[in-house]
Amino acid sequence: MQDAPMVKVKLRDVAEAAGVAVGTVSRVLNRNPTVADPIRRKVQDAIAALGYELDPVAQSMRGGRTRLVACAIRDFDIPRFGIFIKEAEQVLRAHGYTLLLSSTTNRPEVEVELLRAFEGRKVDGVMMTVSDEGDPDVIAALAAARMPVLLIDRDRIESADRVVVDHRTGAALAVEHLLGLGHRRIAMLVGDTKAYPSRSRVQGYRDAFLAQGAAPMPHLLRDRVLTPEDAFRETMALMGLAGPPTAIFVAAMDMLGGCIRALRTLHREVGKDVSLVAGADSELAELHAPPVTAIAWDLAEMGRHAATMLLQRMAGEAADAARCLTLPTRLTIRQSCTAVAPPAAGG
Amino acid sequence: MQDAPMVKVKLRDVAEAAGVAVGTVSRVLNRNPTVADPIRRKVQDAIAALGYELDPVAQSMRGGRTRLVACAIRDFDIPRFGIFIKEAEQVLRAHGYTLLLSSTTNRPEVEVELLRAFEGRKVDGVMMTVSDEGDPDVIAALAAARMPVLLIDRDRIESADRVVVDHRTGAALAVEHLLGLGHRRIAMLVGDTKAYPSRSRVQGYRDAFLAQGAAPMPHLLRDRVLTPEDAFRETMALMGLAGPPTAIFVAAMDMLGGCIRALRTLHREVGKDVSLVAGADSELAELHAPPVTAIAWDLAEMGRHAATMLLQRMAGEAADAARCLTLPTRLTIRQSCTAVAPPAAGG
Repeated sequence: MQDAPMVKVKLRDVAEAAGVAVGTVSRVLNRNPTVADPIRRKVQDAIAALGYELDPVAQSMRGGRTRLVACAIRDFDIPRFGIFIKEAEQVLRAHGYTLLLSSTTNRPEVEVELLRAFEGRKVDGVMMTVSDEGDPDVIAALAAARMPVLLIDRDRIESADRVVVDHRTGAALAVEHLLGLGHRRIAMLVGDTKAYPSRSRVQGYRDAFLAQGAAPMPHLLRDRVLTPEDAFRETMALMGLAGPPTAIFVAAMDMLGGCIRALRTLHREVGKDVSLVAGADSELAELHAPPVTAIAWDLAEMGRHAATMLLQRMAGEAADAARCLTLPTRLTIRQSCTAVAPPAAGG
Repeated sequence: MQDAPMVKVKLRDVAEAAGVAVGTVSRVLNRNPTVADPIRRKVQDAIAALGYELDPVAQSMRGGRTRLVACAIRDFDIPRFGIFIKEAEQVLRAHGYTLLLSSTTNRPEVEVELLRAFEGRKVDGVMMTVSDEGDPDVIAALAAARMPVLLIDRDRIESADRVVVDHRTGAALAVEHLLGLGHRRIAMLVGDTKAYPSRSRVQGYRDAFLAQGAAPMPHLLRDRVLTPEDAFRETMALMGLAGPPTAIFVAAMDMLGGCIRALRTLHREVGKDVSLVAGADSELAELHAPPVTAIAWDLAEMGRHAATMLLQRMAGEAADAARCLTLPTRLTIRQSCTAVAPPAAGG
């Protein structure tokens, strides 16, 4: 309506005045939390000084041009992850957003490519996992993203909003429980420690040992357990050791079945020959005979928080600094863990 | 390139010549299988007679303008459905498509609304479930859809491409197995018979009884079992009958846990006090003690076929008539079913 004949201030004028790149100005306008505070202030000062007015394209972008939110996770056949998706979708839909879904197949190059594709589709926001929180290409792609990105259960890239689960405490509770029953040879199966969940579970395992003045057993710690087949194979290998574990902590989602299959193959009885803790609760853990002690957290709540935090960021209602929300874990004690005799002196 | 000064033939000219609505011409051009053959031919004749050339918008629409495919299912927390999604997404992505995901929450009005929203987003194709295959609004919305729609595990709306599972044979196999072990009081838990999966399972249950000259027991057939809580409640009710079932066929996906919980609550032992068949295989069925006999089918294959058939339809490579692909089921016999003594005379 206002076709005032004044000279229109452009993004590049603001960039020049602030001494930053045009992309940086755009990121400030889009409230991208990757911009450091001093730079953000410089840009905001330049905007105020020049009387820059948001142009309609930028405005419609900020106002949610496509009303699409992308969600990219490792794999859709992780059964319990559907609960997260379900809840996130409901919150997003209530706000008029549609969910776009892609799997990263746990590969950094796919993650980078997806971020680019989401930009091409002009999605308003992204929630995703990354397979390696130290990957420079992924970090660069996240920093350059023109839309807000929320990381799911990843804590290291602090420039992005994050919703994480307190796996460290959960793992420590599980290992404390086993140590309290007299176990020392406690094996642990985890996924890839390049990502937060497995990394923090290993920390929890160590925390529990150190808190009791006991030495962790690195040779009983098996990582990169990513499929039930991996869990089967590692359990077979562990039980074949000269000093096999008296307890196994299957500290990854949906790997319990593989471990139980191996123990069954070896005719080792859960709760009798070997104690067992599941790193993520499931119907299998609950209804197994004997029922399996398990760590649990609320995936529905996680989905709701992720969607809500991303909506706030997209609407510009979030504080400029990136936020990290941590959800608690609890240990549900069932009948799969029994006491062992204390080890013989020198054992 | 060709800016020939001839009078451009418009969609409405074709519609007029063929004596149909403009939307019908558009559906013929988009190879929507809801158009009856005689009408399609009339439109094609008019196109040929008038020398109609596809306009660029229609062409780009047919060529995949957005490269989005929408998938709408009842609920994302149906654990094994992730396998379908995973496979469908991989096939679609290999062809440059991105998946848009929405849940129907199993309500016809949401299904109609979603179809409209998908049109608004100009998605190139849709794969979805519908909660009630007889709902007139849903049928009308499907017929009016401007993009191809493939129905997942629904068979009644024959104007659309469909990928279905042969639940009828699977259910018949399960009930035959139980009848062969001497069971007559065979209870069955199913979902909503307004949709194909439960409807065909009930048919299979009846097939098996009739094939053996036995009378089905309608009072042991419980439908609308949609959550594990429903399965728990119905199992409790069934086992409280004066003549309780000697076998339960949990003929719905992911309801096994609810039934097992009820039997445990009642201290009835699976395979001893009551025989049990799972309508869909799972880790719980496999690793339960005793392992539970289950019907299985290949959800990954189903996802691949659904995506491939939809891609063919979108590319105009499919035959004009709607197709229905049926995937086989098999019965995996484990240790949850045991023989009962034949009923006393007159029993």
